[in-house]
Amino acid sequence: MAGYVSDAVIRRLPAYFRYLWTLESKGVKQISSKDLGESMGLTPSQIRQDINSFGGFGRQGYGYEVTELKNHLQKVLGVNQEHRMVIIGAGRIGQALAAYEGFPMVGFRPIAMFDVAAGRDEPGNLPLYPMQELEERLPDLDVSIAILAIPPAPAQEVMDRLYRLGIRAFWNFATVDLKCPGDAVVVNEHLSDSLGVLSYRMQQLGI
Amino acid sequence: MAGYVSDAVIRRLPAYFRYLWTLESKGVKQISSKDLGESMGLTPSQIRQDINSFGGFGRQGYGYEVTELKNHLQKVLGVNQEHRMVIIGAGRIGQALAAYEGFPMVGFRPIAMFDVAAGRDEPGNLPLYPMQELEERLPDLDVSIAILAIPPAPAQEVMDRLYRLGIRAFWNFATVDLKCPGDAVVVNEHLSDSLGVLSYRMQQLGI
Repeated sequence: MAGYVSDAVIRRLPAYFRYLWTLESKGVKQISSKDLGESMGLTPSQIRQDINSFGGFGRQGYGYEVTELKNHLQKVLGVNQEHRMVIIGAGRIGQALAAYEGFPMVGFRPIAMFDVAAGRDEPGNLPLYPMQELEERLPDLDVSIAILAIPPAPAQEVMDRLYRLGIRAFWNFATVDLKCPGDAVVVNEHLSDSLGVLSYRMQQLGI
Repeated sequence: MAGYVSDAVIRRLPAYFRYLWTLESKGVKQISSKDLGESMGLTPSQIRQDINSFGGFGRQGYGYEVTELKNHLQKVLGVNQEHRMVIIGAGRIGQALAAYEGFPMVGFRPIAMFDVAAGRDEPGNLPLYPMQELEERLPDLDVSIAILAIPPAPAQEVMDRLYRLGIRAFWNFATVDLKCPGDAVVVNEHLSDSLGVLSYRMQQLGI
Protein backbone atom coordinates (compact mmCIF):
# COMPACT_ATOMS: atom_id res chain seq x y z
CA MET A 1 0.00 0.00 0.00
CA ALA A 2 2.79 2.42 0.87
CA GLY A 3 6.57 2.47 0.92
CA TYR A 4 8.79 3.69 3.71
CA VAL A 5 6.98 6.24 5.83
CA SER A 6 9.22 8.39 8.01
CA ASP A 7 8.57 8.95 11.68
CA ALA A 8 7.85 12.64 11.06
CA VAL A 9 5.17 11.74 8.51
CA ILE A 10 3.66 9.10 10.80
CA ARG A 11 3.25 11.74 13.47
CA ARG A 12 1.43 13.98 10.99
CA LEU A 13 -0.94 11.25 9.74
CA PRO A 14 -3.46 11.64 12.58
CA ALA A 15 -3.61 15.39 11.95
CA TYR A 16 -4.32 14.76 8.25
CA PHE A 17 -7.01 12.31 9.23
CA ARG A 18 -8.54 14.69 11.76
CA TYR A 19 -8.56 17.55 9.29
CA LEU A 20 -10.05 15.51 6.43
CA TRP A 21 -12.67 14.13 8.81
CA THR A 22 -13.69 17.71 9.72
CA LEU A 23 -13.79 18.74 6.05
CA GLU A 24 -15.97 15.75 5.19
CA SER A 25 -18.38 16.51 8.03
CA LYS A 26 -18.70 20.05 6.60
CA GLY A 27 -19.60 18.60 3.20
CA VAL A 28 -16.33 19.58 1.47
CA LYS A 29 -15.72 17.26 -1.50
CA GLN A 30 -12.20 18.14 -2.62
CA ILE A 31 -9.17 20.09 -1.45
CA SER A 32 -6.00 21.30 -3.15
CA SER A 33 -2.55 20.60 -1.73
CA LYS A 34 -2.21 24.39 -1.35
CA ASP A 35 -5.29 24.71 0.90
CA LEU A 36 -4.43 21.53 2.79
CA GLY A 37 -0.92 22.92 3.29
CA GLU A 38 -2.17 26.23 4.67
CA SER A 39 -4.34 24.46 7.22
CA MET A 40 -1.60 22.06 8.24
CA GLY A 41 1.24 24.58 8.27
CA LEU A 42 3.11 22.77 5.49
CA THR A 43 4.11 23.66 1.92
CA PRO A 44 2.06 22.20 -0.98
CA SER A 45 5.12 20.14 -2.00
CA GLN A 46 5.46 18.67 1.52
CA ILE A 47 1.77 17.79 1.41
CA ARG A 48 2.17 15.99 -1.93
CA GLN A 49 5.27 14.17 -0.67
CA ASP A 50 3.57 13.13 2.59
CA ILE A 51 0.46 11.87 0.83
CA ASN A 52 2.45 10.01 -1.81
CA SER A 53 4.47 8.30 0.89
CA PHE A 54 1.41 6.65 2.40
CA GLY A 55 -0.08 5.75 -0.94
CA GLY A 56 -2.72 8.42 -1.39
CA PHE A 57 -2.93 10.29 -4.66
CA GLY A 58 -4.38 13.48 -6.08
CA ARG A 59 -5.00 14.75 -9.59
CA GLN A 60 -3.17 17.66 -11.21
CA GLY A 61 -5.21 20.86 -10.96
CA TYR A 62 -7.93 19.18 -8.91
CA GLY A 63 -6.32 18.13 -5.68
CA TYR A 64 -7.61 15.42 -3.39
CA GLU A 65 -10.99 13.76 -2.97
CA VAL A 66 -11.69 14.40 0.71
CA THR A 67 -13.69 11.25 1.48
CA GLU A 68 -11.44 8.97 -0.57
CA LEU A 69 -8.29 10.26 1.11
CA LYS A 70 -9.88 10.17 4.57
CA ASN A 71 -11.01 6.55 4.10
CA HIS A 72 -7.58 5.59 2.82
CA LEU A 73 -5.89 7.20 5.81
CA GLN A 74 -8.33 5.51 8.15
CA LYS A 75 -7.08 2.15 6.89
CA VAL A 76 -3.41 3.17 6.93
CA LEU A 77 -3.81 4.31 10.55
CA GLY A 78 -5.87 1.29 11.54
CA VAL A 79 -8.56 3.49 13.04
CA ASN A 80 -11.34 1.85 11.05
CA GLN A 81 -11.92 -0.60 13.89
CA GLU A 82 -12.75 -0.33 17.58
CA HIS A 83 -9.89 -0.42 20.06
CA ARG A 84 -10.84 -1.28 23.64
CA MET A 85 -8.58 0.33 26.24
CA VAL A 86 -7.89 -0.10 29.92
CA ILE A 87 -6.67 2.84 32.01
CA ILE A 88 -4.17 2.02 34.73
CA GLY A 89 -4.23 4.74 37.39
CA ALA A 90 -7.40 6.57 38.42
CA GLY A 91 -5.67 9.79 39.48
CA ARG A 92 -6.28 13.11 37.75
CA ILE A 93 -4.65 12.17 34.45
CA GLY A 94 -6.43 8.80 34.38
CA GLN A 95 -9.79 10.39 35.12
CA ALA A 96 -9.23 13.11 32.53
CA LEU A 97 -8.47 10.44 29.92
CA ALA A 98 -11.52 8.42 30.95
CA ALA A 99 -13.69 11.44 30.15
CA TYR A 100 -11.72 12.71 27.14
CA GLU A 101 -13.97 13.47 24.20
CA GLY A 102 -11.43 13.24 21.41
CA PHE A 103 -11.45 9.43 21.35
CA PRO A 104 -14.74 8.29 19.82
CA MET A 105 -13.85 9.83 16.44
CA VAL A 106 -10.90 7.52 16.15
CA GLY A 107 -12.57 4.40 17.54
CA PHE A 108 -10.72 4.19 20.86
CA ARG A 109 -12.85 3.35 23.85
CA PRO A 110 -11.72 3.24 27.48
CA ILE A 111 -13.76 0.50 29.15
CA ALA A 112 -12.32 0.06 32.64
CA MET A 113 -9.83 1.51 35.12
CA PHE A 114 -7.55 -0.08 37.68
CA ASP A 115 -5.91 1.63 40.65
CA VAL A 116 -3.82 0.56 43.64
CA ALA A 117 -5.75 2.91 45.94
CA ALA A 118 -9.00 1.26 46.94
CA GLY A 119 -10.52 4.50 48.26
CA ARG A 120 -10.45 6.38 44.95
CA ASP A 121 -13.60 8.16 43.87
CA GLU A 122 -15.50 6.28 41.22
CA PRO A 123 -14.73 8.14 38.00
CA GLY A 124 -18.44 7.94 37.20
CA ASN A 125 -18.43 6.65 33.68
CA LEU A 126 -16.15 3.61 33.96
CA PRO A 127 -15.87 0.64 36.32
CA LEU A 128 -12.88 0.99 38.66
CA TYR A 129 -11.14 -2.16 39.92
CA PRO A 130 -8.32 -2.63 42.44
CA MET A 131 -4.91 -3.39 40.91
CA GLN A 132 -4.78 -6.74 42.77
CA GLU A 133 -7.58 -7.97 40.53
CA LEU A 134 -5.72 -7.15 37.29
CA GLU A 135 -4.69 -10.76 36.49
CA GLU A 136 -8.16 -12.04 37.25
CA ARG A 137 -10.19 -9.43 35.37
CA LEU A 138 -8.10 -8.35 32.39
CA PRO A 139 -8.68 -11.42 30.18
CA ASP A 140 -12.47 -10.86 30.23
CA LEU A 141 -12.17 -7.18 29.35
CA ASP A 142 -10.83 -7.94 25.87
CA VAL A 143 -8.67 -4.82 25.63
CA SER A 144 -5.86 -4.24 23.14
CA ILE A 145 -4.37 -1.04 24.57
CA ALA A 146 -3.30 -0.07 28.09
CA ILE A 147 -3.03 3.58 29.09
CA LEU A 148 -0.48 4.10 31.86
CA ALA A 149 -1.54 7.06 33.99
CA ILE A 150 0.69 6.25 36.94
CA PRO A 151 3.82 7.73 38.57
CA PRO A 152 7.19 7.05 36.90
CA ALA A 153 8.59 4.77 39.62
CA PRO A 154 6.31 1.73 39.15
CA ALA A 155 5.68 2.33 35.43
CA GLN A 156 8.11 -0.20 33.90
CA GLU A 157 7.00 -2.92 36.34
CA VAL A 158 3.32 -2.31 35.62
CA MET A 159 4.01 -2.37 31.89
CA ASP A 160 5.84 -5.69 32.19
CA ARG A 161 2.91 -7.08 34.18
CA LEU A 162 0.45 -6.03 31.48
CA TYR A 163 2.75 -7.46 28.81
CA ARG A 164 2.69 -10.83 30.58
CA LEU A 165 -1.10 -10.64 30.44
CA GLY A 166 -0.94 -10.25 26.66
CA ILE A 167 -1.20 -6.48 26.21
CA ARG A 168 0.98 -5.36 23.29
CA ALA A 169 0.19 -1.66 22.98
CA PHE A 170 0.83 1.03 25.57
CA TRP A 171 0.12 4.72 25.80
CA ASN A 172 2.37 5.97 28.54
CA PHE A 173 1.78 9.16 30.57
CA ALA A 174 4.26 8.26 33.32
CA THR A 175 6.76 11.00 32.25
CA VAL A 176 9.48 8.38 31.85
CA ASP A 177 10.36 6.67 28.57
CA LEU A 178 9.45 2.99 28.78
CA LYS A 179 10.92 0.20 26.67
CA CYS A 180 8.98 -2.78 25.47
CA PRO A 181 9.85 -6.03 23.64
CA GLY A 182 9.92 -5.90 19.83
CA ASP A 183 6.48 -7.46 19.47
CA ALA A 184 4.86 -4.60 21.39
CA VAL A 185 4.56 -0.85 20.86
CA VAL A 186 4.67 2.04 23.25
CA VAL A 187 3.96 5.72 22.67
CA ASN A 188 5.58 7.73 25.42
CA GLU A 189 3.57 10.89 26.01
CA HIS A 190 5.41 13.91 27.31
CA LEU A 191 2.93 16.74 27.63
CA SER A 192 5.69 19.14 28.59
CA ASP A 193 7.23 18.73 25.11
CA SER A 194 4.38 20.88 23.79
CA LEU A 195 5.35 23.59 26.23
CA GLY A 196 8.87 23.43 24.83
CA VAL A 197 7.48 24.00 21.34
CA LEU A 198 5.31 26.86 22.62
CA SER A 199 8.27 28.41 24.41
CA TYR A 200 10.44 28.13 21.28
CA ARG A 201 7.82 29.94 19.22
CA MET A 202 7.33 32.59 21.92
CA GLN A 203 11.05 33.26 21.82
CA GLN A 204 11.04 33.51 18.00
CA LEU A 205 8.31 36.17 18.26
CA GLY A 206 9.95 37.94 21.20
CA ILE A 207 6.94 37.28 23.47
CA MET B 1 22.48 31.39 16.52
CA ALA B 2 20.83 28.98 14.12
CA GLY B 3 19.52 28.95 10.57
CA TYR B 4 16.15 27.72 9.39
CA VAL B 5 14.80 25.08 11.74
CA SER B 6 12.04 22.93 10.29
CA ASP B 7 8.83 22.23 12.10
CA ALA B 8 9.72 18.55 12.48
CA VAL B 9 13.01 19.46 14.19
CA ILE B 10 11.29 22.00 16.45
CA ARG B 11 8.97 19.26 17.64
CA ARG B 12 11.97 17.07 18.46
CA LEU B 13 13.87 19.78 20.37
CA PRO B 14 12.05 19.25 23.68
CA ALA B 15 12.78 15.52 23.50
CA TYR B 16 16.48 16.24 22.94
CA PHE B 17 16.42 18.61 25.89
CA ARG B 18 14.60 16.13 28.10
CA TYR B 19 16.99 13.34 27.20
CA LEU B 20 20.14 15.44 27.71
CA TRP B 21 18.75 16.69 31.01
CA THR B 22 18.34 13.06 32.17
CA LEU B 23 21.85 12.16 31.00
CA GLU B 24 23.31 15.13 32.87
CA SER B 25 21.48 14.22 36.06
CA LYS B 26 23.01 10.73 35.77
CA GLY B 27 26.49 12.28 35.51
CA VAL B 28 27.04 11.42 31.82
CA LYS B 29 29.57 13.87 30.32
CA GLN B 30 29.46 13.09 26.61
CA ILE B 31 27.39 11.17 24.10
CA SER B 32 27.95 10.08 20.51
CA SER B 33 25.44 10.80 17.76
CA LYS B 34 25.05 7.02 17.45
CA ASP B 35 24.00 6.56 21.10
CA LEU B 36 21.85 9.68 21.02
CA GLY B 37 20.23 8.36 17.83
CA GLU B 38 19.43 4.99 19.36
CA SER B 39 17.71 6.62 22.32
CA MET B 40 15.77 9.04 20.16
CA GLY B 41 14.85 6.58 17.39
CA LEU B 42 16.81 8.54 14.76
CA THR B 43 19.86 7.79 12.61
CA PRO B 44 23.23 9.31 13.61
CA SER B 45 23.13 11.44 10.46
CA GLN B 46 19.67 12.82 11.35
CA ILE B 47 20.99 13.61 14.82
CA ARG B 48 23.95 15.53 13.38
CA GLN B 49 21.68 17.37 10.94
CA ASP B 50 19.16 18.28 13.67
CA ILE B 51 21.83 19.51 16.04
CA ASN B 52 23.61 21.51 13.35
CA SER B 53 20.34 23.17 12.39
CA PHE B 54 19.91 24.71 15.84
CA GLY B 55 23.54 25.71 16.14
CA GLY B 56 24.91 22.99 18.40
CA PHE B 57 28.10 21.22 17.43
CA GLY B 58 30.00 18.04 18.22
CA ARG B 59 33.55 16.87 17.58
CA GLN B 60 34.52 14.05 15.21
CA GLY B 61 35.10 10.82 17.13
CA TYR B 62 34.01 12.36 20.42
CA GLY B 63 30.40 13.35 20.04
CA TYR B 64 28.59 15.92 22.12
CA GLU B 65 29.30 17.50 25.49
CA VAL B 66 26.06 16.71 27.37
CA THR B 67 25.94 19.80 29.60
CA GLU B 68 27.05 22.19 26.89
CA LEU B 69 24.45 20.91 24.43
CA LYS B 70 21.72 20.86 27.10
CA ASN B 71 22.46 24.45 28.11
CA HIS B 72 22.49 25.54 24.48
CA LEU B 73 19.14 23.85 23.85
CA GLN B 74 17.71 25.41 26.97
CA LYS B 75 18.39 28.85 25.48
CA VAL B 76 17.16 27.90 22.01
CA LEU B 77 13.92 26.64 23.56
CA GLY B 78 13.60 29.58 25.92
CA VAL B 79 13.13 27.26 28.88
CA ASN B 80 15.90 28.91 30.90
CA GLN B 81 13.35 31.26 32.46
CA GLU B 82 10.17 30.86 34.47
CA HIS B 83 6.86 30.93 32.60
CA ARG B 84 3.80 31.65 34.72
CA MET B 85 0.63 30.02 33.39
CA VAL B 86 -3.08 30.35 33.98
CA ILE B 87 -5.40 27.39 33.44
CA ILE B 88 -8.82 28.17 32.01
CA GLY B 89 -11.24 25.38 32.87
CA ALA B 90 -11.12 23.44 36.14
CA GLY B 91 -12.62 20.24 34.77
CA ARG B 92 -10.73 16.97 34.70
CA ILE B 93 -8.18 18.02 32.08
CA GLY B 94 -7.59 21.35 33.82
CA GLN B 95 -7.13 19.67 37.19
CA ALA B 96 -4.83 17.05 35.73
CA LEU B 97 -2.67 19.80 34.22
CA ALA B 98 -2.67 21.72 37.51
CA ALA B 99 -1.14 18.69 39.20
CA TYR B 100 1.07 17.55 36.31
CA GLU B 101 4.62 16.86 37.43
CA GLY B 102 6.41 17.20 34.12
CA PHE B 103 6.40 21.02 34.23
CA PRO B 104 8.93 22.13 36.85
CA MET B 105 11.84 20.71 34.85
CA VAL B 106 11.10 23.09 32.02
CA GLY B 107 10.26 26.14 34.15
CA PHE B 108 6.52 26.27 33.51
CA ARG B 109 4.39 26.98 36.54
CA PRO B 110 0.57 27.00 36.67
CA ILE B 111 -0.39 29.62 39.24
CA ALA B 112 -4.17 30.00 39.06
CA MET B 113 -7.30 28.53 37.49
CA PHE B 114 -10.51 30.10 36.24
CA ASP B 115 -13.82 28.35 35.63
CA VAL B 116 -17.36 29.36 34.67
CA ALA B 117 -18.85 26.91 37.18
CA ALA B 118 -18.78 28.47 40.63
CA GLY B 119 -19.45 25.16 42.37
CA ARG B 120 -16.28 23.42 41.19
CA ASP B 121 -14.18 21.60 43.75
CA GLU B 122 -11.07 23.52 44.70
CA PRO B 123 -8.26 21.74 42.86
CA GLY B 124 -6.28 21.89 46.10
CA ASN B 125 -2.99 23.25 44.96
CA LEU B 126 -4.07 26.34 43.00
CA PRO B 127 -6.45 29.25 43.60
CA LEU B 128 -9.64 28.90 41.54
CA TYR B 129 -11.48 32.04 40.42
CA PRO B 130 -14.80 32.49 38.59
CA MET B 131 -14.51 33.38 34.91
CA GLN B 132 -16.37 36.68 35.51
CA GLU B 133 -13.34 37.91 37.44
CA LEU B 134 -10.90 37.22 34.58
CA GLU B 135 -10.56 40.87 33.46
CA GLU B 136 -10.15 42.06 37.02
CA ARG B 137 -7.64 39.47 38.22
CA LEU B 138 -5.50 38.51 35.24
CA PRO B 139 -3.29 41.65 35.15
CA ASP B 140 -2.07 40.99 38.72
CA LEU B 141 -1.28 37.35 38.04
CA ASP B 142 1.55 38.25 35.64
CA VAL B 143 1.13 35.17 33.44
CA SER B 144 2.55 34.74 29.95
CA ILE B 145 0.78 31.52 28.92
CA ALA B 146 -2.88 30.46 29.05
CA ILE B 147 -3.84 26.81 29.02
CA LEU B 148 -7.29 26.26 27.53
CA ALA B 149 -8.88 23.21 29.14
CA ILE B 150 -12.41 23.99 28.04
CA PRO B 151 -14.96 22.53 25.60
CA PRO B 152 -14.52 23.32 21.89
CA ALA B 153 -17.61 25.55 21.53
CA PRO B 154 -16.46 28.56 23.61
CA ALA B 155 -12.73 28.06 22.94
CA GLN B 156 -12.16 30.69 20.24
CA GLU B 157 -14.13 33.30 22.16
CA VAL B 158 -12.22 32.63 25.37
CA MET B 159 -8.93 32.81 23.50
CA ASP B 160 -9.90 36.17 21.95
CA ARG B 161 -10.84 37.45 25.41
CA LEU B 162 -7.44 36.42 26.79
CA TYR B 163 -5.72 37.98 23.79
CA ARG B 164 -7.45 41.29 24.54
CA LEU B 165 -6.04 41.03 28.07
CA GLY B 166 -2.53 40.75 26.65
CA ILE B 167 -1.95 36.99 26.63
CA ARG B 168 0.11 36.01 23.57
CA ALA B 169 0.74 32.30 24.10
CA PHE B 170 -1.85 29.54 24.28
CA TRP B 171 -1.76 25.83 24.91
CA ASN B 172 -5.07 24.56 23.67
CA PHE B 173 -6.72 21.29 24.82
CA ALA B 174 -10.15 22.15 23.43
CA THR B 175 -9.92 19.51 20.63
CA VAL B 176 -10.50 22.20 18.01
CA ASP B 177 -7.75 24.03 16.14
CA LEU B 178 -7.72 27.67 17.15
CA LYS B 179 -6.27 30.54 15.15
CA CYS B 180 -4.55 33.53 16.66
CA PRO B 181 -3.18 36.84 15.33
CA GLY B 182 0.38 36.85 14.00
CA ASP B 183 1.84 38.33 17.18
CA ALA B 184 0.62 35.38 19.26
CA VAL B 185 1.30 31.64 19.26
CA VAL B 186 -0.94 28.68 19.86
CA VAL B 187 -0.07 25.02 20.24
CA ASN B 188 -3.16 22.95 19.57
CA GLU B 189 -2.98 19.75 21.58
CA HIS B 190 -4.76 16.72 20.20
CA LEU B 191 -4.19 13.83 22.54
CA SER B 192 -5.95 11.46 20.19
CA ASP B 193 -3.19 12.01 17.61
CA SER B 194 -0.95 9.84 19.77
CA LEU B 195 -3.53 7.09 19.59
CA GLY B 196 -3.39 7.37 15.81
CA VAL B 197 0.38 6.87 15.94
CA LEU B 198 -0.05 3.92 18.33
CA SER B 199 -2.69 2.38 16.10
CA TYR B 200 -0.47 2.80 13.01
CA ARG B 201 2.38 1.01 14.75
CA MET B 202 0.06 -1.73 16.02
CA GLN B 203 -1.07 -2.32 12.46
CA GLN B 204 2.55 -2.46 11.21
CA LEU B 205 3.26 -5.20 13.79
CA GLY B 206 0.00 -7.02 13.16
CA ILE B 207 -1.18 -6.50 16.76
